[in-house]
Amino acid sequence: MLISCPDQPGIVAAVSTFLFEHQGNIVDIDQHVDQEDSVFFMRVEWEIEGFALKRGELRSALEPLMGRFSMEWELHFSDVVPRAALFVTKDNHCFYDLLSRHESGELGMEIPLILSNREDLRAVAERFGIPFHHFPISKETKQSQEEAQIALLQEHGVDLVILARYMQILSARMTGAFPHRIINIHHSFLPAFPGARPYHSAHRRGVKLVGATSHYVTEELDEGPIIAQGVTPVSHSDAVQDFIRKGRALEQSVLSRAVWLHLNRRTLVHANRTVVFG
Amino acid sequence: MLISCPDQPGIVAAVSTFLFEHQGNIVDIDQHVDQEDSVFFMRVEWEIEGFALKRGELRSALEPLMGRFSMEWELHFSDVVPRAALFVTKDNHCFYDLLSRHESGELGMEIPLILSNREDLRAVAERFGIPFHHFPISKETKQSQEEAQIALLQEHGVDLVILARYMQILSARMTGAFPHRIINIHHSFLPAFPGARPYHSAHRRGVKLVGATSHYVTEELDEGPIIAQGVTPVSHSDAVQDFIRKGRALEQSVLSRAVWLHLNRRTLVHANRTVVFG
Amino acid sequence: MLISCPDQPGIVAAVSTFLFEHQGNIVDIDQHVDQEDSVFFMRVEWEIEGFALKRGELRSALEPLMGRFSMEWELHFSDVVPRAALFVTKDNHCFYDLLSRHESGELGMEIPLILSNREDLRAVAERFGIPFHHFPISKETKQSQEEAQIALLQEHGVDLVILARYMQILSARMTGAFPHRIINIHHSFLPAFPGARPYHSAHRRGVKLVGATSHYVTEELDEGPIIAQGVTPVSHSDAVQDFIRKGRALEQSVLSRAVWLHLNRRTLVHANRTVVFG
Amino acid sequence: MLISCPDQPGIVAAVSTFLFEHQGNIVDIDQHVDQEDSVFFMRVEWEIEGFALKRGELRSALEPLMGRFSMEWELHFSDVVPRAALFVTKDNHCFYDLLSRHESGELGMEIPLILSNREDLRAVAERFGIPFHHFPISKETKQSQEEAQIALLQEHGVDLVILARYMQILSARMTGAFPHRIINIHHSFLPAFPGARPYHSAHRRGVKLVGATSHYVTEELDEGPIIAQGVTPVSHSDAVQDFIRKGRALEQSVLSRAVWLHLNRRTLVHANRTVVFG
Repeated sequence: MLISCPDQPGIVAAVSTFLFEHQGNIVDIDQHVDQEDSVFFMRVEWEIEGFALKRGELRSALEPLMGRFSMEWELHFSDVVPRAALFVTKDNHCFYDLLSRHESGELGMEIPLILSNREDLRAVAERFGIPFHHFPISKETKQSQEEAQIALLQEHGVDLVILARYMQILSARMTGAFPHRIINIHHSFLPAFPGARPYHSAHRRGVKLVGATSHYVTEELDEGPIIAQGVTPVSHSDAVQDFIRKGRALEQSVLSRAVWLHLNRRTLVHANRTVVFG
Repeated sequence: MLISCPDQPGIVAAVSTFLFEHQGNIVDIDQHVDQEDSVFFMRVEWEIEGFALKRGELRSALEPLMGRFSMEWELHFSDVVPRAALFVTKDNHCFYDLLSRHESGELGMEIPLILSNREDLRAVAERFGIPFHHFPISKETKQSQEEAQIALLQEHGVDLVILARYMQILSARMTGAFPHRIINIHHSFLPAFPGARPYHSAHRRGVKLVGATSHYVTEELDEGPIIAQGVTPVSHSDAVQDFIRKGRALEQSVLSRAVWLHLNRRTLVHANRTVVFG
Repeated sequence: MLISCPDQPGIVAAVSTFLFEHQGNIVDIDQHVDQEDSVFFMRVEWEIEGFALKRGELRSALEPLMGRFSMEWELHFSDVVPRAALFVTKDNHCFYDLLSRHESGELGMEIPLILSNREDLRAVAERFGIPFHHFPISKETKQSQEEAQIALLQEHGVDLVILARYMQILSARMTGAFPHRIINIHHSFLPAFPGARPYHSAHRRGVKLVGATSHYVTEELDEGPIIAQGVTPVSHSDAVQDFIRKGRALEQSVLSRAVWLHLNRRTLVHANRTVVFG
Repeated sequence: MLISCPDQPGIVAAVSTFLFEHQGNIVDIDQHVDQEDSVFFMRVEWEIEGFALKRGELRSALEPLMGRFSMEWELHFSDVVPRAALFVTKDNHCFYDLLSRHESGELGMEIPLILSNREDLRAVAERFGIPFHHFPISKETKQSQEEAQIALLQEHGVDLVILARYMQILSARMTGAFPHRIINIHHSFLPAFPGARPYHSAHRRGVKLVGATSHYVTEELDEGPIIAQGVTPVSHSDAVQDFIRKGRALEQSVLSRAVWLHLNRRTLVHANRTVVFG
């Protein structure tokens, strides 16, 4: 369960007492208070075995508590497997990395479909036996294609969209359809080098580290809440191609970390920032 | 308040309810369960302002709760300034770094005295106006000198001993007198390269990163619970002197982090490992 | 060209003058002197286009120069694609990572075959259209199976063997057949936690960083020259399974870096250490 | 000796042959070619002992060689101790760190004087016995005070100016007087968060790493050639004050690394980027 609400005394006591009274054994509890905005955040995980309330009863039983503290809350069950769609273009490294982690069971998700604006990676998708949908996008077709993508995603019951180096900017219609449920990997240390060709810009500026940033996608390009970031050293002897090569492992690692955090319900968003209970 | 006890349902509820009932506003709560040993750990910080219990009453008021769950617990007040003694030999970098952080108020401690087995750094101590005590140590005098050191530390009400590159091995008598209250910085990534001259050993082995480890000192040399670790890259072109130079910034940063964590009561020890509520 | 020889004045002058006199345009030159052992190392890369000597003539033309300085040397042409065999067992993350980098052309090698002591990853190999050879290994068959492996590798003209989480210890016969041409990834920061189950040992010790080390395999287990190392942070809240998960991205990145360095002829070995011209 | 010139074949051969012919034993040679601009860079270090040319003769002996390749070059002798001035304001951590490294002999420089726009750190300077000059700066006096500073620096034969958290923007007059000889530490990962209060901006943006950048100061604020960069992890639970605390060790380490690289003549500047022969 993920909770956020205005801060006030007694929240932890009320929630933990509620769980205790219904024989809920707390496995993990994390809490954070945003001092500036006086907002309280909590993630609490308990065992469903032995818990006195049935799933169907839980929401109504919680309502009075939630109402009392004006809580916004999400309830997730760890045995419900989330469904994620991958968006790709032609770079394959994040794609393969997610598929490999998926195959080894690390991420605990289903991948019902893969979408792309190009055909390049169809063969990879087919190798893994996952349906591949090609949505070529031009200026004229962008709007209609996005509508078709949204319909397809909803039809497949997709909870999460992962942009695994998808080289198209999403419209507000798409980001609005999946609020804080679209994760992107940007190949720079944001807010440095937003937009196109960040490795080229980084090389021109002569930085000594290149970065990668995984964030929720919002209407503003590369401005969404950051989930995870990493860097790796570079030097004057690295050409742009070396930046790209060295950045690959970084992008894989940062994206898969962000996806894992999201899927394990360890992220909350407030004021365009994330609370990450790592 | 730091708590550890056998894990069982209801601990969080009981503690948070106790605080709520006495008008204690929880500022920060962290919890961890060691699944292997079924041990529960918690750190809870609340505001003393508005709290219904006086300091003197707190312990007895907590007793029933603590007894019910067989808790081991420590209670610290953030306005009580801890007193730390620094042990040094001749390397000055960790020494200066701690003094500088002390001066800027970052660490929130007092340094009533400095001890050394050599005279080299007396001038530095005097520059900062801190009494410097010289305890030359030979095989014959080691035992008696340690007794004198312990007496002096106790006389000054020292809570924490920081070995800022102190080049003497402490006896079991000393480590026993300050259990989990002596912090050392070892200049390697433990358990690699324990003992003397780790940079030399690291150079000989041809590692590509050098490390530093800050840990609580126990009877077993370099085997105590690890609080913080860091690494920095090296290459074939680095001589041992370069390892030493590159390691300096690392040692400073790792030691000061560990000291900060301890002073802010964010560390608990169990089974020779630390729980660090970062 | 990679050179090592006893250090003496005039080596750089002699080599660079030789190249200049034959219209060789130096693209990259790196040099290192091991001061302890007085050994000189150099890597020099020049353009073959416009170079006055044919490939066939080069060796004999270089002989006098090499003899004069008692050089050991290797000559590689960047248009000759090296042939690497992958050894795997059941963990797939390094395997997929290498295949993905291979597919994107980053590594510039051919993979004529894959060997395994188990059948688990046959399907992956087949997906990529690479022949998969199963060599089940028991105590009794180990010696004969290794002979068969060596024969197969030589038959396929393999230059490099990559152990991508291969869970068998190679005998001296195998390591001797491919000296400094077998690269392993060990999932710890060597020399800490050599041998089996390093993540379990690291967890037990309570380290705050887990590491990965890529090295050339020698007769001594986990004692070979280190090519690349990396670390990633862990905490008390990470179970062994989390160490394993966090270590995955690290192993991928460290192994692929080491393979890239080797394939681009940027590594030299001396006294069980590497010189890496990164 | 540091050299840069238009790239062409034969440069390495010519320089190394020149040194060999005058009995110069090369200790270290590094070279780099900027492929885009076709510029050649070299750093060559040789032993003065046994070298056939006297210091006075060296320049004229080199002239023909330098002229032939249109070289820009600098000649430094490792026994000539460079003189650095420190500029500080009130943060003391970089200041202490440099003084400590200075005292331990790591940096191999003299510090004839310290300048500040405030009085805060006079006591620290005096503790180390280094003259402290106070130059209060207001909008009206800025120009004249800078002129006085430049005069004082020149009078003391200062080679290098280190801005150790100096909180004033230098005018073009000052940066022009010491081209590529003023090193600053900026407390962000440039080009992210240039200008004032970068930790506050980083906190607002919700980054997961904070950075520090050491660069040569040019007329454009925070736009000069980058010498070294580093990052350290932060989380949602860190307030701005924690960013500042965690950033301290980073700033120390990045600045001291940049100063060491400069003093050891391992940096060259081209097209607003550095070549760093690490």
